[in-house]
Amino acid sequence: MENLERNLTLLADFYEFTMANGYIKLGRGDKTGYFDYFFRRVPDDGGYAIFAGLTQLIEYLENLKFNDEDIEYFKSKGIFSDEFLQTMRNFKFTCDVWAVKEGSVIFPHEPIVTVKGPLYQVQMIETMLLLILNHQSLVATKTSRIVRVANGRDVSEFGSRRAHGADAANYGARAAYIGGAVASANAYADRHMGIPATGTMAHSWVQSFDSELEAFRAYAEVYPDSCLLLVDTYDVLRSGVPHAIKVFDELKAKNHKPIGVRIDSGDIAYLTKATRKMLDEAGYEDAVIVVSNSMDEHKIKDLLNQGAKIDAFGVGERLITAKSDPVFGGVYKLVAMENDGEIIPKIKISEDVEKITNPGFKQIYRLYDKETGYMEADLVTLHDEEAPNGEPLEIFHPLFTWKRSVVSNYEAVPLLTQIFKEGKLIYKNPDIEEIRNYAKSELDRVWEEVKRLDSPHAYYVDLSQKLYDVRFNLLKERNDL
Amino acid sequence: MENLERNLTLLADFYEFTMANGYIKLGRGDKTGYFDYFFRRVPDDGGYAIFAGLTQLIEYLENLKFNDEDIEYFKSKGIFSDEFLQTMRNFKFTCDVWAVKEGSVIFPHEPIVTVKGPLYQVQMIETMLLLILNHQSLVATKTSRIVRVANGRDVSEFGSRRAHGADAANYGARAAYIGGAVASANAYADRHMGIPATGTMAHSWVQSFDSELEAFRAYAEVYPDSCLLLVDTYDVLRSGVPHAIKVFDELKAKNHKPIGVRIDSGDIAYLTKATRKMLDEAGYEDAVIVVSNSMDEHKIKDLLNQGAKIDAFGVGERLITAKSDPVFGGVYKLVAMENDGEIIPKIKISEDVEKITNPGFKQIYRLYDKETGYMEADLVTLHDEEAPNGEPLEIFHPLFTWKRSVVSNYEAVPLLTQIFKEGKLIYKNPDIEEIRNYAKSELDRVWEEVKRLDSPHAYYVDLSQKLYDVRFNLLKERNDL
Repeated sequence: MENLERNLTLLADFYEFTMANGYIKLGRGDKTGYFDYFFRRVPDDGGYAIFAGLTQLIEYLENLKFNDEDIEYFKSKGIFSDEFLQTMRNFKFTCDVWAVKEGSVIFPHEPIVTVKGPLYQVQMIETMLLLILNHQSLVATKTSRIVRVANGRDVSEFGSRRAHGADAANYGARAAYIGGAVASANAYADRHMGIPATGTMAHSWVQSFDSELEAFRAYAEVYPDSCLLLVDTYDVLRSGVPHAIKVFDELKAKNHKPIGVRIDSGDIAYLTKATRKMLDEAGYEDAVIVVSNSMDEHKIKDLLNQGAKIDAFGVGERLITAKSDPVFGGVYKLVAMENDGEIIPKIKISEDVEKITNPGFKQIYRLYDKETGYMEADLVTLHDEEAPNGEPLEIFHPLFTWKRSVVSNYEAVPLLTQIFKEGKLIYKNPDIEEIRNYAKSELDRVWEEVKRLDSPHAYYVDLSQKLYDVRFNLLKERNDL
Repeated sequence: MENLERNLTLLADFYEFTMANGYIKLGRGDKTGYFDYFFRRVPDDGGYAIFAGLTQLIEYLENLKFNDEDIEYFKSKGIFSDEFLQTMRNFKFTCDVWAVKEGSVIFPHEPIVTVKGPLYQVQMIETMLLLILNHQSLVATKTSRIVRVANGRDVSEFGSRRAHGADAANYGARAAYIGGAVASANAYADRHMGIPATGTMAHSWVQSFDSELEAFRAYAEVYPDSCLLLVDTYDVLRSGVPHAIKVFDELKAKNHKPIGVRIDSGDIAYLTKATRKMLDEAGYEDAVIVVSNSMDEHKIKDLLNQGAKIDAFGVGERLITAKSDPVFGGVYKLVAMENDGEIIPKIKISEDVEKITNPGFKQIYRLYDKETGYMEADLVTLHDEEAPNGEPLEIFHPLFTWKRSVVSNYEAVPLLTQIFKEGKLIYKNPDIEEIRNYAKSELDRVWEEVKRLDSPHAYYVDLSQKLYDVRFNLLKERNDL
């Protein structure tokens, strides 16, 4: 992967190094800490998110190192101790990492990734861990919303040009694919990550010829069997579609089957209906209509409600930037410290009760209904609690504890799998197709009420009684101070 | 630059290659085309934008090449001709490029970059040109709004963790610096691009000790002369600030001067006022208060209106993603073709008149008032028109042509400079400090009315009579068809 020739180890908030220096200088560098990656709210107030980016997180963690210039950089700051410089020079990643599978459906307030290891290391990877996972989960989640509304029609990712830099374009294409897009316009993502690329022509192709008809004929000459024509450079109905039909007739006469047309501007509902009629009347019932102007889940829903005749969508800036809500607010918080092998849960207090963390080293069990296959609830437990055994289980809301329900006839599946053990990768990462299929099959097991765009039902993420008690006691202790 | 070890030549919309293949196969590959980069609307409905990313565009253009695996990738698609593969294998960039200086204040509907060259080349660089310039101009512009409202207080970029991938973090830090931020938290941007990095401690530092006081003392021990303490892990006023003052007293006793405190949550207006009072009463009038929770231009304005006591801002996700409007809608459009050395202007029509392009190969003259130094208007002309000579000049709105005004006593400065000549870099790119200073000094020459956050005055970007006529005639011709 050429992308990895970059050494991104220094891509960290500077405070991660000032803290690391502090820990090492104070002899606390080897103290063991536990950090959780989790999020508090689904973007766009949706009901679920899709976890993406684990593959790139693994690549990053496997390639941590500081070169001589990096060490010189630290030295030049005049605040770093010799022990710190020495530790960085010989840096070796020795942490344990657990994570849910890439492509998983995830919910707020549960640990998606847990990292355990020497404080200075666990802390140092914060920024990259967050930016990789936040970015890809954001785009995968947004795409999932769009794909759902497209209701079986193909959605392709067309947004590279509005992405926030090259990584946003490349990994955004990847995340979109995991989220359900069928293709991307980005050739780099195809060549390097196996995301199928598609693309035909821009307005400039049409403009560069003396006439639209000439431009279409030229394209058909080069691509007789994949002829999809962009028909809105001048006037869709007066010029674009009639010229396309003329060229389709010429192709047909030579026994080629045209693909269809693309419309990139104007009143899409009206234009696609009129275009469909013209194509059908000319005998091109099979020719597809692709549209691609400022699409997102709301616009697509609206177009389909209006009876627009659309076979496929190209979705650009609003997908690749997740425009309506471009931040996946995942955070990475200290949840425990080890003291002589004993795990001491730690908590971060906030006036906003939603922001109080779940302390301790934890596991998540997802309870699938044995009959329907649907996921009913997630139970977050301490890491060494026994798994729910299939007996009826009373779960309760972690804040409004009078809200209780009993789950029965379930299968409890642990979600956190160990990825790194003492710095060594022990997990076989699935390929992109497997990740994408997993996302799709898991999404099929989420209730429609949780998946709907507006005001979705809140999926249950509850705490075990033991974890609840740990948290409650820490809060009470702190309050009594 | 390690970043450039990546070969991003393939980061292009696939249609750029299908079109290139078409042009080459049809013998049109060497036809000369002119493309303009321009935008139609300032994000957040602002009155101006800051142009950033030219340095990275130059780096990209200087490193265009396809390696053997890229050629194999093309081959595997089964649609590319041998001539195309041969041309790509021996690819050599031979275009001319003109651009306004990086850091310039820019306005809608004027050519910011013009590329002239063989059609297949000019087309092929579209995606990277757009994503580099759109991304950095977006973040520089957003930062400029935030810095303006902070009214002289330092603004630092803290958003890496919510950036859309590593490039978005690194180049976002760079763009923020051009837009007026004083620093970034991102160490990579410091080491590789000279953006000053800052950072002290996270909540995890405090949590990892048995008590907050112990944590503060430890930090002061390691950093006695740069002691800035994060005071909101448990309770700002009951615990954080009192503990900070205790540690400041201990530092003072050892002749060290503490820096101040940072507050990252809660009611910032109330907490900063109370904190200021406590610090002042303890004799720390010089200690600064830094705040850093979900800041943007609106929140900062609101806090300062409430009399919050703040010395500096750390601005995260809302800056690095330009959350309120995360798309800089720059486009790249064919504006002319050459035919036997003659430049033939080309136009893209749209039902939306704002979307009709300005045809032809052009120059921009910025008219600065000789007395005040302020910029009064930009005049877009054909490239070979004579520069406005200082005589009173009647300018008119390009759509509402009855809106006219006369500019006099001005200096006319051409904005487009040649960067590449036949593929060779002929421009000496300024360093980051120079670019940042240029942005600042130019912004000082923009009227306040154009810079205000809400409903700014629209700066005049008018067309010369000659350019207007070219455009009008092309539109009329098309309409008469």
